[in-house]
Amino acid sequence: MIQTLAIIGVGLIGGSLALALKERGAVGKVIGAGRNEDNLKLAESLGIVDSWTTSLIDAVKDADVVLIAVPMGAYESVLKTIAPALKDGAVVTDAGSTKQHAIEVATCLPEHVSFIAAHPLAGTEKSGADAAFPTLYQDHLCIVTPDETTDKKALAVVEKMWQDAGANVVSMPAAEHDKLLGAVSHLPHLAAFALVNAVNKQKTDDFDPMAYAAGGFKDFTRIASSSPEMWRDIALANRDTLEQQIDILLDELQNIRVALQASDKESLTALFSSAKDARDDWLAKRTKENI
Amino acid sequence: MIQTLAIIGVGLIGGSLALALKERGAVGKVIGAGRNEDNLKLAESLGIVDSWTTSLIDAVKDADVVLIAVPMGAYESVLKTIAPALKDGAVVTDAGSTKQHAIEVATCLPEHVSFIAAHPLAGTEKSGADAAFPTLYQDHLCIVTPDETTDKKALAVVEKMWQDAGANVVSMPAAEHDKLLGAVSHLPHLAAFALVNAVNKQKTDDFDPMAYAAGGFKDFTRIASSSPEMWRDIALANRDTLEQQIDILLDELQNIRVALQASDKESLTALFSSAKDARDDWLAKRTKENI
Repeated sequence: MIQTLAIIGVGLIGGSLALALKERGAVGKVIGAGRNEDNLKLAESLGIVDSWTTSLIDAVKDADVVLIAVPMGAYESVLKTIAPALKDGAVVTDAGSTKQHAIEVATCLPEHVSFIAAHPLAGTEKSGADAAFPTLYQDHLCIVTPDETTDKKALAVVEKMWQDAGANVVSMPAAEHDKLLGAVSHLPHLAAFALVNAVNKQKTDDFDPMAYAAGGFKDFTRIASSSPEMWRDIALANRDTLEQQIDILLDELQNIRVALQASDKESLTALFSSAKDARDDWLAKRTKENI
Repeated sequence: MIQTLAIIGVGLIGGSLALALKERGAVGKVIGAGRNEDNLKLAESLGIVDSWTTSLIDAVKDADVVLIAVPMGAYESVLKTIAPALKDGAVVTDAGSTKQHAIEVATCLPEHVSFIAAHPLAGTEKSGADAAFPTLYQDHLCIVTPDETTDKKALAVVEKMWQDAGANVVSMPAAEHDKLLGAVSHLPHLAAFALVNAVNKQKTDDFDPMAYAAGGFKDFTRIASSSPEMWRDIALANRDTLEQQIDILLDELQNIRVALQASDKESLTALFSSAKDARDDWLAKRTKENI
């Protein structure tokens, strides 16, 4: 059991973790911290945090575990602020979508604390404390990315924390994580933003395609309603991988365009079928594993 | 009330229309036709059709209204087959996703029947009679695309049919329909196929990104589980528009790539924000209108 957990950034991610741990009795006291007082008051009223403060130093000084759940662009400033206030043996962890960047930034932390990079693969396009719910992580993966310098006891604390929240914890190198997630999460987000922009920019007084958008468009573009600032930070933190990923998608779109231009029925069928088969196989496996 | 409705292709689209009209008492007899006997038997057992036949000629010879609900690649063959069997004053209509192509192919029909091109904006990625349900069209748009040669009585019959099925009928030129739907429906489908292929082609023994795909990927790629043959036909029937649409999406992806390569925070935020704002505005309007 974690005696005192400080959560910097009490939104969907941090708030849902707190709710899950509280339900399970896996945490003593939860202290919320951030800049938005209204959100912190809301988090207290929703039973997400036991107390809150806008002082990051006050929030972390007695904490056994500190969860950084702010946009990645704010990591450096947050970590530098809390570094002098952390107690001996404190475990600092995060829930961000890229891990090499998090580990690099966390090198500013003092020797007497441990940093454990983690990424729960769950979320919605919503944000803020009122978006939090205790089952967000149930049966979802949480990836930890330790290396040979990682403190094993601190790693065990963080792994146990996510298991208590309902997640299945898996471990892999940070570079592998960033490549995998670049393909399967970051690229779809960039593509969704690009698709909405592509449709929206065509709007004129006489031509309003989005007025005719239906269910397919709704689902396809759900992730385009995600936080622009959060995704800007993720994109920049995983820049090299994402440049490659965009190029791969550009190639695949070109493949369809070339087949279309040539009225090449066989190639179009093959391109669409390979996508359908891959997606159907993935969904069948996912449904079977109940994730 | 339509006395006798023949549905060529009793799948999600045709089957759902039959169920909706039957619930409303807006149709007398529904005759199902197609090539797949098992599907037709299933449609009968589900109460979608009153009788069925694999002979298109038998299906249409007494029909007042004939709905063509087959993949667009099969239109020409179906229309040429039924043309000599249609009775005087019969109304032939379709539910396909591109309208200029439908109208062009339907010129093979005899003078004594009317063709009304229509497109209900509803559907799921599923197909077959067992995917049909009576509320599929409820509060969805159905676009009809008459021109100066269109028979007004036949148009009224088809408009009434879709209204009885719960749809809101709007009218526009076929060319406008094809451009609008190219942007807001066909392009997202092509992009979803391309995205799944882009992720799937990266799979190796050591690297399996789809194993780490979560909810965002699931929603984003739902439409990639659509019928490859149907989307091949749609893509080819709307080829010129879709080449332009792919180019617009390629441009938007390049915009993101350029901003990323330059680590241009402001441009990335602006690109992602414009997409989020457009999508959120659309969703708010759509929710308000309950469609």
